[in-house]
Amino acid sequence: MRPSGRNLSEMRPVSIETGVMRHAEGSCLIKVGHTHVLCSASLEERVPPFIKGSGQGWVTAEYGMLPRSTSSRMRREATSGKQGGRTVEIQRLIGRSLRAGVDRQALGERQITVDCDVLQADGGTRCAAITGGWVALRLAVNKLMKAGDVKTDPLISEVAAVSCGIYAGQPLLDLDYPEDSEAGVDGNFILRGDGQLIEIQMSAEGATFSRAQMAELMDLAETGVSQLVEAQRKAVA
Amino acid sequence: MRPSGRNLSEMRPVSIETGVMRHAEGSCLIKVGHTHVLCSASLEERVPPFIKGSGQGWVTAEYGMLPRSTSSRMRREATSGKQGGRTVEIQRLIGRSLRAGVDRQALGERQITVDCDVLQADGGTRCAAITGGWVALRLAVNKLMKAGDVKTDPLISEVAAVSCGIYAGQPLLDLDYPEDSEAGVDGNFILRGDGQLIEIQMSAEGATFSRAQMAELMDLAETGVSQLVEAQRKAVA
Amino acid sequence: MRPSGRNLSEMRPVSIETGVMRHAEGSCLIKVGHTHVLCSASLEERVPPFIKGSGQGWVTAEYGMLPRSTSSRMRREATSGKQGGRTVEIQRLIGRSLRAGVDRQALGERQITVDCDVLQADGGTRCAAITGGWVALRLAVNKLMKAGDVKTDPLISEVAAVSCGIYAGQPLLDLDYPEDSEAGVDGNFILRGDGQLIEIQMSAEGATFSRAQMAELMDLAETGVSQLVEAQRKAVA
Amino acid sequence: MRPSGRNLSEMRPVSIETGVMRHAEGSCLIKVGHTHVLCSASLEERVPPFIKGSGQGWVTAEYGMLPRSTSSRMRREATSGKQGGRTVEIQRLIGRSLRAGVDRQALGERQITVDCDVLQADGGTRCAAITGGWVALRLAVNKLMKAGDVKTDPLISEVAAVSCGIYAGQPLLDLDYPEDSEAGVDGNFILRGDGQLIEIQMSAEGATFSRAQMAELMDLAETGVSQLVEAQRKAVA
Amino acid sequence: MRPSGRNLSEMRPVSIETGVMRHAEGSCLIKVGHTHVLCSASLEERVPPFIKGSGQGWVTAEYGMLPRSTSSRMRREATSGKQGGRTVEIQRLIGRSLRAGVDRQALGERQITVDCDVLQADGGTRCAAITGGWVALRLAVNKLMKAGDVKTDPLISEVAAVSCGIYAGQPLLDLDYPEDSEAGVDGNFILRGDGQLIEIQMSAEGATFSRAQMAELMDLAETGVSQLVEAQRKAVA
Amino acid sequence: MRPSGRNLSEMRPVSIETGVMRHAEGSCLIKVGHTHVLCSASLEERVPPFIKGSGQGWVTAEYGMLPRSTSSRMRREATSGKQGGRTVEIQRLIGRSLRAGVDRQALGERQITVDCDVLQADGGTRCAAITGGWVALRLAVNKLMKAGDVKTDPLISEVAAVSCGIYAGQPLLDLDYPEDSEAGVDGNFILRGDGQLIEIQMSAEGATFSRAQMAELMDLAETGVSQLVEAQRKAVA
Repeated sequence: MRPSGRNLSEMRPVSIETGVMRHAEGSCLIKVGHTHVLCSASLEERVPPFIKGSGQGWVTAEYGMLPRSTSSRMRREATSGKQGGRTVEIQRLIGRSLRAGVDRQALGERQITVDCDVLQADGGTRCAAITGGWVALRLAVNKLMKAGDVKTDPLISEVAAVSCGIYAGQPLLDLDYPEDSEAGVDGNFILRGDGQLIEIQMSAEGATFSRAQMAELMDLAETGVSQLVEAQRKAVA
Repeated sequence: MRPSGRNLSEMRPVSIETGVMRHAEGSCLIKVGHTHVLCSASLEERVPPFIKGSGQGWVTAEYGMLPRSTSSRMRREATSGKQGGRTVEIQRLIGRSLRAGVDRQALGERQITVDCDVLQADGGTRCAAITGGWVALRLAVNKLMKAGDVKTDPLISEVAAVSCGIYAGQPLLDLDYPEDSEAGVDGNFILRGDGQLIEIQMSAEGATFSRAQMAELMDLAETGVSQLVEAQRKAVA
Repeated sequence: MRPSGRNLSEMRPVSIETGVMRHAEGSCLIKVGHTHVLCSASLEERVPPFIKGSGQGWVTAEYGMLPRSTSSRMRREATSGKQGGRTVEIQRLIGRSLRAGVDRQALGERQITVDCDVLQADGGTRCAAITGGWVALRLAVNKLMKAGDVKTDPLISEVAAVSCGIYAGQPLLDLDYPEDSEAGVDGNFILRGDGQLIEIQMSAEGATFSRAQMAELMDLAETGVSQLVEAQRKAVA
Repeated sequence: MRPSGRNLSEMRPVSIETGVMRHAEGSCLIKVGHTHVLCSASLEERVPPFIKGSGQGWVTAEYGMLPRSTSSRMRREATSGKQGGRTVEIQRLIGRSLRAGVDRQALGERQITVDCDVLQADGGTRCAAITGGWVALRLAVNKLMKAGDVKTDPLISEVAAVSCGIYAGQPLLDLDYPEDSEAGVDGNFILRGDGQLIEIQMSAEGATFSRAQMAELMDLAETGVSQLVEAQRKAVA
Repeated sequence: MRPSGRNLSEMRPVSIETGVMRHAEGSCLIKVGHTHVLCSASLEERVPPFIKGSGQGWVTAEYGMLPRSTSSRMRREATSGKQGGRTVEIQRLIGRSLRAGVDRQALGERQITVDCDVLQADGGTRCAAITGGWVALRLAVNKLMKAGDVKTDPLISEVAAVSCGIYAGQPLLDLDYPEDSEAGVDGNFILRGDGQLIEIQMSAEGATFSRAQMAELMDLAETGVSQLVEAQRKAVA
Repeated sequence: MRPSGRNLSEMRPVSIETGVMRHAEGSCLIKVGHTHVLCSASLEERVPPFIKGSGQGWVTAEYGMLPRSTSSRMRREATSGKQGGRTVEIQRLIGRSLRAGVDRQALGERQITVDCDVLQADGGTRCAAITGGWVALRLAVNKLMKAGDVKTDPLISEVAAVSCGIYAGQPLLDLDYPEDSEAGVDGNFILRGDGQLIEIQMSAEGATFSRAQMAELMDLAETGVSQLVEAQRKAVA
């Protein structure tokens, strides 16, 4: 079977604790198995230059890992003088995914920055960051609405993400780190709570896959995301 | 219909001229419509530290755009002190994609660096870079085989890429720049010459898509890549 | 009296939870009031070049703040291309302080890196980092001793730190952020569990202080550190 | 005689193809033997801060080499975090030289950036860049004049450059790479089409030269530049 | 005894030559034994953004060492791409210390930057920089007052600094480089001419100290600073 | 006549004080009028990788300006993260010029780094740096020869430099800053003590010059350099 002993379509346990950072407009600590990500949403009453005056808002994200979130200590990106290619890719993905669930006109000219910092890593950190990041975003938007600064809810639907991969010829849901390092093909599926697709990133390192396998992975992703959306709804209720 | 006036499933004209850089082990200038990319393959008899002694080779890629390849002049990355996030993402994609078509054991402990420099841009530069990059790689490997340095052909199959997107609700093949800027959903499909999938990157900026639409895009991609592979075969014949 | 309503010589509540990072050799989450710092100790069987072959070990530290640990979001240091002057000063202080409690000969040629990441800030983060950092270090060293890799305990005594300052002419112990921003004179006292002084940093921003005041601050510091050392002992028991 | 087999005062064949970059206001591909440089001129309706409000325009230049333009692959400057000293020197020279042929008052408050990117290098790239850069500049200015944005021609005369050197005691014109690496003394002469001198850079690496030799080099330079100016005139006719 | 042969409480000879940089508003070359620091004060009629409009001025400092100021040549910080941690710590200290002697309201909205460049180093460079930096500041302020731009003297008192340390169990004043490298405990005391304390930085590298020793060091510091203040007064008379 | 009131062919007063930096193998403070440059030569018993094992030595140079060496304060290069283009050009020129006077075989496998730091600037700093840099180099080489580490004198001849320019149509020798900023054409001539030319850099900013003018400038340069060489000889006698 799979290294973790889970069924092929079995997610790890998911928990989302909200309100964990007293300064942030919205925050949560999401745990997907041993992967722990601290997410905060920070509101600013200004937007990037390229949309100034458009009446539209902006949602962006940043991602980081604590040096010892991983099995052996990683170099701190602040000391190496820049964010690595992987970090930049991930934070662009988180921002793009969250924006796909936002009506930016309804948000109005303000910016929300979602910070996702991995305290402990065991595979699937970017998916946990998107899923938890949406919860932080939801809480910050709730605050705006309660204050009357925003009239129409700018959040169209939940946004959640899960990884899938092919391991020993078998499609798997929600890979942990040992599974991820062995899978020749893996990827991330970002969906909205209403089932629409936002982003698919399937990638084969030294391997390939067929259209039939692609369809099976898609089925698994839909299963996983629906469970994550349920956890999100409970957390923000 | 589509801004370019092409049919929904119609590629732009493709040409591949080889042997254009006298110092490189392999090189070509690929033109996909007005998108022109100069590709070279550089051989080195050394490998990165992480595979030293493994008996395996490595293929990597770098990507750049000339400042005035675009409609308005872009800042030169060498002057801004680093490669931007987009550049890093693209060159990681090119390297990963090309490696999926390489038997690294057969290549032996040597590295081939594929440089893809965009002389003129009109959408789809990363796909043209992958398609042209494979031709440069093929020519460099031919040289190695002719010299007897490599016995078994390390190239398993061609690697080629095409973009698809959804524009005004319609799935389109091979988007040029005006189409790309209007499409709410677009992505890149990288396939091998034998039809296997290597990488799928579908992404919606401020939009979403359904599973049915995903299947249509996949059909278009298969059509486009088979034409590109034919052009590659002619170029290296 | 003081903004926080505490007595002049009253510390905030202190808690230290150990074993919070599964990959680290030692770890804790220290909370001093609303200041929360996650500390980990990472062991490596190598030392910096300048002591290679000396038979001695090394202890070093790094410090960071999550962007939204503060009242308004700070820029992430990884994106600004370098660690700021304040960060560098603090992490040099943490490393220097911890080393003053270590018999580096007894540690042997290995390095322990203590990472202190501020999850939430409310004044005194560097003091909390030193106090919590020592706990993480203690736990990592315990592991080395249990494994028999180290025979003699290399930790001479506890190392703990507290801030003191002068606010409205009155000497205060353990300043929170509002107190710290109002105090004209403030500083940090790092002591060992046996009462020896390791480091004193008193500094006046736009103010000065007398020798008599200096003596009062020293008294407060001794009171505070003895409470912190008690909390450290309980945590590692 | 000389390694290339040419006569001492013989230039390599020169060709200049214009209009090769569809987005640029002016562009050309100049080939001097195996040295190939792609030049573009980009117009902006703004000037650098230090001449804002002066009524005068500005011409500046940037220079780059593709990684495999050279015999062995060079590191891409964008990845090394900055432009090297040689690149900076060359692009400052190109900009300064072109400005010596421009009436900046007649140009009016606008900036033209000339990008010179070496596709293939075989010695004399900076001279080819100046000569080709002037052609791109000429074409961009023609466009401005045709549009009526500029009334008086701001280009006073052609600007062209050639290298000369002393090899085995003999003065040579237009050194290719093998000649350049052997010459103890070499330099660049930048002249206007009307014969006036703009810049002389003679430099001896581990050697020296006499005033008599300097005069001979000057004669060669005048011969070479007059041929280049002829080629420029034909190209822009 | 001590390595230098001086008495425990004996300073090195101190000289301060003023007016050594013709462009600066105030300047001096301070020599404390073989430690030579060139100090200049530069006046600008603008302030940093964070105090704009406050009516208050600002005093800041920068510090550098010539590459061969030290026994073996150090790398130039301009070539290593940034100021090291030690440099940043020192220049923050100089600025903070000088500001403690300034009435920023009386100075008015202008900035004075004090540059301290070490021409020759033999221990105690930061203390010499503070002491000499104050002289440069005094001279620049005199100029402002003579010109009538400032009515009330913004300098409250002199600011001077001296190092003390514990060597072989003995407290020493004004350590030179050989003494400093051997001392287990050392630090810097910054005082005003009126005897008030501005900053204390006592630090033990691999050692500790007691409260009794701390008091002895404080006595030494008061002795040393009073001699430095006398030298400052003579220099600016 | 000329702004400084000097005759057209009149140098500023030149003084060279040696032995001014106690740690350096050779050093001097050169003053050419109000331009003051501190030069040191640092010896290392290692060479750069590209000549390791060749039996030859290396001479290199670095150049810097103190922030307030100029009329208005310049930004410190260490804080701006890199050396500017002008600095890099100048230090490459100094190194290249000095090497033209060195028999690198006779020097043997060792490196001498010449640091030239401008304490006060009033035009012609790079020429003063070369002239003073040679004196520091001479003194360091003398030390090597006295110690018997080098048998044959590796210094072939003196190396000295002077600037010339065309101001109001008149050729001038040794321009100070006000003259330099007004001259349309100016440049630097580096010669050996035996009259051989090492480097010529004539450059016109927004102007041009004729061959006849070039000859006049050359005459002036020869006059100036012979006076500088005399000063060098006196200084090292």
